[in-house]
Amino acid sequence: MNILFVGDIVGSPGRDMLKQYLSKLKSKYRPDLTIVNGENAANGKGLTEKLYHEILELGADIITMGNHTWDKKEIFDFIDSAPNMIRPANFPEGTPGRGIHYIKTNGKEIAVINLQGRTFLAPIDCPFRKAEELVEEAAKRTPLIFVDFHAEATSEKQAMGWFLDGKVSAVVGTHTHVQTADERILEKGTAYITDAGMTGPYDGILGVEKDMVIKRFLTSLPVRFEVAEGRAQLSAVLIQVDKQSGRAKKIQRLLINDDHHFFE
Amino acid sequence: MNILFVGDIVGSPGRDMLKQYLSKLKSKYRPDLTIVNGENAANGKGLTEKLYHEILELGADIITMGNHTWDKKEIFDFIDSAPNMIRPANFPEGTPGRGIHYIKTNGKEIAVINLQGRTFLAPIDCPFRKAEELVEEAAKRTPLIFVDFHAEATSEKQAMGWFLDGKVSAVVGTHTHVQTADERILEKGTAYITDAGMTGPYDGILGVEKDMVIKRFLTSLPVRFEVAEGRAQLSAVLIQVDKQSGRAKKIQRLLINDDHHFFE
Amino acid sequence: MNILFVGDIVGSPGRDMLKQYLSKLKSKYRPDLTIVNGENAANGKGLTEKLYHEILELGADIITMGNHTWDKKEIFDFIDSAPNMIRPANFPEGTPGRGIHYIKTNGKEIAVINLQGRTFLAPIDCPFRKAEELVEEAAKRTPLIFVDFHAEATSEKQAMGWFLDGKVSAVVGTHTHVQTADERILEKGTAYITDAGMTGPYDGILGVEKDMVIKRFLTSLPVRFEVAEGRAQLSAVLIQVDKQSGRAKKIQRLLINDDHHFFE
Amino acid sequence: MNILFVGDIVGSPGRDMLKQYLSKLKSKYRPDLTIVNGENAANGKGLTEKLYHEILELGADIITMGNHTWDKKEIFDFIDSAPNMIRPANFPEGTPGRGIHYIKTNGKEIAVINLQGRTFLAPIDCPFRKAEELVEEAAKRTPLIFVDFHAEATSEKQAMGWFLDGKVSAVVGTHTHVQTADERILEKGTAYITDAGMTGPYDGILGVEKDMVIKRFLTSLPVRFEVAEGRAQLSAVLIQVDKQSGRAKKIQRLLINDDHHFFE
Ligand SMILES: [Fe+2]
Ligand SMILES: [Fe+2]
Ligand SMILES: [Fe+2]
Ligand SMILES: [Fe+2]
Ligand SMILES: [Fe+2]
Ligand SMILES: [Fe+2]
Ligand SMILES: [Fe+2]
Ligand SMILES: [Fe+2]
Repeated sequence: MNILFVGDIVGSPGRDMLKQYLSKLKSKYRPDLTIVNGENAANGKGLTEKLYHEILELGADIITMGNHTWDKKEIFDFIDSAPNMIRPANFPEGTPGRGIHYIKTNGKEIAVINLQGRTFLAPIDCPFRKAEELVEEAAKRTPLIFVDFHAEATSEKQAMGWFLDGKVSAVVGTHTHVQTADERILEKGTAYITDAGMTGPYDGILGVEKDMVIKRFLTSLPVRFEVAEGRAQLSAVLIQVDKQSGRAKKIQRLLINDDHHFFE
Repeated sequence: MNILFVGDIVGSPGRDMLKQYLSKLKSKYRPDLTIVNGENAANGKGLTEKLYHEILELGADIITMGNHTWDKKEIFDFIDSAPNMIRPANFPEGTPGRGIHYIKTNGKEIAVINLQGRTFLAPIDCPFRKAEELVEEAAKRTPLIFVDFHAEATSEKQAMGWFLDGKVSAVVGTHTHVQTADERILEKGTAYITDAGMTGPYDGILGVEKDMVIKRFLTSLPVRFEVAEGRAQLSAVLIQVDKQSGRAKKIQRLLINDDHHFFE
Repeated sequence: MNILFVGDIVGSPGRDMLKQYLSKLKSKYRPDLTIVNGENAANGKGLTEKLYHEILELGADIITMGNHTWDKKEIFDFIDSAPNMIRPANFPEGTPGRGIHYIKTNGKEIAVINLQGRTFLAPIDCPFRKAEELVEEAAKRTPLIFVDFHAEATSEKQAMGWFLDGKVSAVVGTHTHVQTADERILEKGTAYITDAGMTGPYDGILGVEKDMVIKRFLTSLPVRFEVAEGRAQLSAVLIQVDKQSGRAKKIQRLLINDDHHFFE
Repeated sequence: MNILFVGDIVGSPGRDMLKQYLSKLKSKYRPDLTIVNGENAANGKGLTEKLYHEILELGADIITMGNHTWDKKEIFDFIDSAPNMIRPANFPEGTPGRGIHYIKTNGKEIAVINLQGRTFLAPIDCPFRKAEELVEEAAKRTPLIFVDFHAEATSEKQAMGWFLDGKVSAVVGTHTHVQTADERILEKGTAYITDAGMTGPYDGILGVEKDMVIKRFLTSLPVRFEVAEGRAQLSAVLIQVDKQSGRAKKIQRLLINDDHHFFE
């Protein structure tokens, strides 16, 4: 079974890349499940209902989120009736939305879990204990469990990978918007990568117009962050999982930009 | 002209990898200059005088540092008489050591600069302004300028890359201990990678024994961080620079571990 | 009913002040219960078993803690058999020690709760939800509930005060080591102060030798923090509570140092 | 010579208190100079040109700022032509505005300096080194130097107090919005208080509507911060300085609210 995960979609450049390449990626890799992180889809900040539907129509089966979940006010209007999106499961109890979703594909059920780190991020519930709880629950239904761990610190992400090693099919990091080169199968069979990277502008800073970010670092003055224009990139990860055991057999990074062309 | 940069050496596993592979890497890639980040060489925390010499003898021409510079007390005894090591240049004025070093190789002078970020790290002097100042100074002597930017946040690192684009030969990030897959030549000819990655334990968390780190995340209790035992990895970057212009022609990631074997 | 709370005891200067003044304070104010924060009693860092007993013998009925709880390794050996000390209740589940203690005095039972903030501090469980849970539990036994909220940010502390207003007798802040002048009875009868202040050196920086702290701010170099010598101070709060309703009638700051003399 | 300093004015409740009490305070205490921190005057966030003039007309001689300096966009239009306001002097070089102001009163010149801390705040230039530089410059003109140190951490604030002890007339902290009770004359004659406190709503959280802040702590959801309605308070400090030496003779806290009435 193949799972395709596409990293944080940033604004219209990110959505355009999805439009241009997702069907080609699906033709080439034939994923049984396609997961897309959509926390920056709406102009870099959150997700609207329109874009929620657009990303699904472009081919995503489920959308994961992160610290930008609540950036657009209208999220509160549709998140509880949007079956195919999840937000970090360790947001405080009572928060709108859900953090785990079970989806059927090819007669198999897969649990998709979204979690968020706390190091250098807002103080929420413990992602490790929430992971333990949800994985225990999911394991009763299926050995196929995918985790999008949205976190800043490499230590927290690697810790989550090892913590869940042998218990889930994959732990894929998001949030830093830079793809890491440490994809691997951990000792007990969990596919791991610290960050899948970002899908959006190729010549900005994390997707943002670079002059603004540099100005902020130089002056500490407030600047308006706008999604960068120009060339774009797509960052993704393909994971091959054994249907019966749920353990990963292969993890492969995918990067499409002007320095890494896509071959069908 | 080729520059080889080896990411943070962590403890004896990192030094062993250097011992085992540096000469082979040099035989294969024939670098004109070899730079090694040594901030974690001494049991994960800082550098001793003995290890300073050991790393140079293993083939490094210059050692860069980072936030762990002062971890070993004896650093204060030898840093000012250690010609081939630098620490972040934007440490407050009056701090022991220096942040820029000029080195001659094959009749060409290269400036090597070490800087440290401030996002999620200690509040020190502005790395961007210090970079500007030192690059201006260095540019009077040579177009060949290499920067090790030791920083946590991907935004700060990418900002430094674009800030120095066209002014230096390379901006190579360190500190997160995870190699990133975003190596590229920026628009005006500067080689860039967000993080070169770490040289040390392959099965720990950033080089540290994993059970301890997981325990800390689960309990917030203090734990003794020990360099992990077992298999090791080496992370490096090779940069090809035009001797005359100082602009980069190529940047290539190098990763040696049980999942990525080295071929001579 | 009077409750006397003495702020963070720092090292031997703090213990000496306790020795010198606690019995005098008790003679003067006749508290029914004396609570002392002891997180810095052992040389500024944590608490030893010897000092646990010493502080109780000096007149404390119960000792509260904070982020320095685990600084001394021996704490793990005695905390679970030390009936009269509590550590922040919102430390992760499974952590040694307890966060609530019921104590009888003059035929009345009082619940003492210790909590820790998360803003600018380690990411632990939510102090507000833990407070809600423990206060609900305690309210079944007694209307007399005292909370030591160990936190850095004034916003988090005031938020806790208002959150528990009318549900507990008092919310007294600790941790910043500086007594605040905002003691008051909130609208629904809870006594509140952002910080009780510290009991220890009068001429240091939060109790630490001042030259070392200034050096660290100037240079970012590591420095050995030692408890300051010389003159000392005692910081405390006296709260008068209605025995039947548990609501506070009065809150009074106490400060003893060379600028504020104690009159018996 | 008397200097009156009024802590952070928060929104219209803060301005109303200034309107109601500043002239009375001036009648009673006859300050030679009145300084008001105005960083939250415009609806809690920054300062407008209209309010800049309003606060001066209410009786302030000079307005200091802090981390909210740039909250209102129009500040960039008038700050460089507003002679009687300063922003933290250690903002990066090239930032609009100035951080030191010399003002004449009763034939004497006083230097007023605004600085901002870095602990738990944005990484800007070193406040200690900038203080040293400005104090050295000012000392050539006058022994009367007043510092508003806008900072979060009590350690950084006390460090600044001791660092400048004997070199300036007063170091008054702002930013936490809670008045501290540690006002004193340091060993070499500098008046010091960790925080002057805030002038604005009395029943909010740092001036903000309390239900919103509590909701944010409980849920981590974004909330709209609005200045609290209802009762208000005024927090200030009065410092008596020896005209010739510049050393402080007395420092006195002033607090006006429903629990602390003002007597003319
Ligand atoms: Fe993102
Ligand atoms: Fe994110
Ligand atoms: Fe490192
Ligand atoms: Fe580092
Ligand atoms: Fe303390
Ligand atoms: Fe503390
Ligand atoms: Fe303020
Ligand atoms: Fe502020």
